[in-house]
Amino acid sequence: MQFKRASGLITLTTDFGLRDPFVGVMKGSIYRRFPTACIVDLTHEILVHWPAEAGFWLRRCSDYFPEGSVHVAVVDPGVGTARQIIAVLSGGFVFLAPDNGLLAPVVDRDPAAVVHALDTARLAQLGVSAASATFHGRDIFAPVAAEIAAGRCDPRSLGPPVTSIVPSWLEEAQQESDRVTGVVVTIDHFGNLITNIDAPLLRSFVEPHVYAGHQVLPLRRTYADATPGGFLALVNSFGVVEIACAEGSAELALGLSRGAPVVVRDAVRHR
Amino acid sequence: MQFKRASGLITLTTDFGLRDPFVGVMKGSIYRRFPTACIVDLTHEILVHWPAEAGFWLRRCSDYFPEGSVHVAVVDPGVGTARQIIAVLSGGFVFLAPDNGLLAPVVDRDPAAVVHALDTARLAQLGVSAASATFHGRDIFAPVAAEIAAGRCDPRSLGPPVTSIVPSWLEEAQQESDRVTGVVVTIDHFGNLITNIDAPLLRSFVEPHVYAGHQVLPLRRTYADATPGGFLALVNSFGVVEIACAEGSAELALGLSRGAPVVVRDAVRHR
Amino acid sequence: MQFKRASGLITLTTDFGLRDPFVGVMKGSIYRRFPTACIVDLTHEILVHWPAEAGFWLRRCSDYFPEGSVHVAVVDPGVGTARQIIAVLSGGFVFLAPDNGLLAPVVDRDPAAVVHALDTARLAQLGVSAASATFHGRDIFAPVAAEIAAGRCDPRSLGPPVTSIVPSWLEEAQQESDRVTGVVVTIDHFGNLITNIDAPLLRSFVEPHVYAGHQVLPLRRTYADATPGGFLALVNSFGVVEIACAEGSAELALGLSRGAPVVVRDAVRHR
Repeated sequence: MQFKRASGLITLTTDFGLRDPFVGVMKGSIYRRFPTACIVDLTHEILVHWPAEAGFWLRRCSDYFPEGSVHVAVVDPGVGTARQIIAVLSGGFVFLAPDNGLLAPVVDRDPAAVVHALDTARLAQLGVSAASATFHGRDIFAPVAAEIAAGRCDPRSLGPPVTSIVPSWLEEAQQESDRVTGVVVTIDHFGNLITNIDAPLLRSFVEPHVYAGHQVLPLRRTYADATPGGFLALVNSFGVVEIACAEGSAELALGLSRGAPVVVRDAVRHR
Repeated sequence: MQFKRASGLITLTTDFGLRDPFVGVMKGSIYRRFPTACIVDLTHEILVHWPAEAGFWLRRCSDYFPEGSVHVAVVDPGVGTARQIIAVLSGGFVFLAPDNGLLAPVVDRDPAAVVHALDTARLAQLGVSAASATFHGRDIFAPVAAEIAAGRCDPRSLGPPVTSIVPSWLEEAQQESDRVTGVVVTIDHFGNLITNIDAPLLRSFVEPHVYAGHQVLPLRRTYADATPGGFLALVNSFGVVEIACAEGSAELALGLSRGAPVVVRDAVRHR
Repeated sequence: MQFKRASGLITLTTDFGLRDPFVGVMKGSIYRRFPTACIVDLTHEILVHWPAEAGFWLRRCSDYFPEGSVHVAVVDPGVGTARQIIAVLSGGFVFLAPDNGLLAPVVDRDPAAVVHALDTARLAQLGVSAASATFHGRDIFAPVAAEIAAGRCDPRSLGPPVTSIVPSWLEEAQQESDRVTGVVVTIDHFGNLITNIDAPLLRSFVEPHVYAGHQVLPLRRTYADATPGGFLALVNSFGVVEIACAEGSAELALGLSRGAPVVVRDAVRHR
């Protein structure tokens, strides 16, 4: 399913944090062109300069928004260099991001995804230019998102189609004969360790057990299935394996962080 | 006064923080059903897994919103268990939260409050179900709030009336012959210590003095009534006793935290 | 250019943080009077009790919003005292803030700026009064901003014109024969050190070099012009000199903070 009709909604995902006025100014730049935009912050606390985390979340969050929404992601250490900006049409949404691997997880899951690179001359026709070399979120992403979300601009018209983009910085989980191997991608506010192991990889497992740090954990359904303070693993609400500590922080209690290896084995086969 | 007409406004109060896309995804889930919703973040920094703080603030903040608003609070360590979700009609508002004590402060102040428990079969009729066992904020609270705020669903129709809910985790301040005893409930961004001592409890006091840590403090009107760095107590803008340090942090300077006892005595009687 | 027609948009700049419900309650107070307001958070992480930072950003951010927007800034250690609240008309915008130096940077740049002090009697006519002595953001700024943004109230009618306001807490950068001297005003989420040295001050320099801490740095165009971990200086997207560490934090790497002196010399003249 491709992009049909703009919903008027724009989501923002950045590593800007909320301490400075950068996110606010991006919104001002959107509203100047599209005063009735509906803007939703997905998160502005992506690990600084790590596009992989933004792509991980966008792939898993985009579908919860109205069809026809525009998802803008700016994690952009190469701002002001020759790196491209791409528009991806996938699943009824438009995604805008620098071509630095950020959108690879979105493109990789959808063989029907259409990718275009933004063309400077075309942007100039829209009155969009790199006024600064360091804040394309405000100068390019915001006005372009506004034009698309307002339904005034077909993203396919923004530049030439692209057949190859920068690959993801994050390896996919590996499926081997008796195990699946992945890593901790991100840690949430509760200290839950969230991995890149998608639930379908465990489909053939009878009794999956998760190995993380010094723990071997059976898969539970929800946090309260362990006693407070106890560790557990589960498939979380975004469909990936997560390691948690009931009413506590798995991050602190296990001492694990981003990149820590996580393995799932089948206890039945394993015996 | 009960809920009459939806204002279209939904407030969100959670312990999700803003680091992850959880709040953003809840908003997406609301906008999918109700694209013209007006969503306001009350706070997402409730102390993790502590519903009492959410209830404390909701009771004191709800009235500042347009009549007919829907106040959603998700601090929910029991998500995915048999705990109920309740809808409370009070003061012209609807409140939605897990039945874990969170809404007790709201219900306790209003003898006319009406409480209903959400019924799974009824939710199914609205197309709402627990798609996940761990994120009911997205899967249940958001779509139900959207239906109510859009004026398409009477909260009383969502399930059977309930006459008893889980009580508050927080004791009310105690009124004794010559004193009122309470605790620090929360600490704000400025380091002000905010107590559960409501101003009406001090009505009969001629010269109230606040005992906190090693300080005895007369009640002042505003922060600038003490010299910078000096301690003071006042009835804050939400009608409760607060201990502050002018242009400083009472939390750091007094070394007090949540749960610290605070006593108010009448200096006149006390003599 | 003065304020002509309200855009319906209100920006908020405070030192309230996002931990407490204070910002949410301000928004509720706005929506009660003006349900279709468009509210944008500029930032709520202004250094506590430091109006200068709010003024620094407002002057440099206001123009990115639709003409006719209302910019509200509440950094207000003197709340509840005799300090005035002022409305400034400048550049097609209205600014509302306590008269504590916050808006001096906005007024100083615009000889055509018009300043009025809010009059208690006039506010009373609008049904606005200081219900509390400690939260004028909710009780005064929010409803007044709502009335102006809704187009129901000319800011010049709110009280008498004022010819003198409290000056800025922040000195302007100094231009000397062979150098420009300024300070670090704020540090962003990335650890970039942002100074008060506006680019036009360097107009006559052939080869500007920035002296900060133990570094002498030529001016670059963007972050990627230094190798990762390397220091650089640039004119940032808000037109002021900034010291950065490519893919790192200049704050941590240089050990500099707010108030640190920064000097720009011309390498050509200097030889």
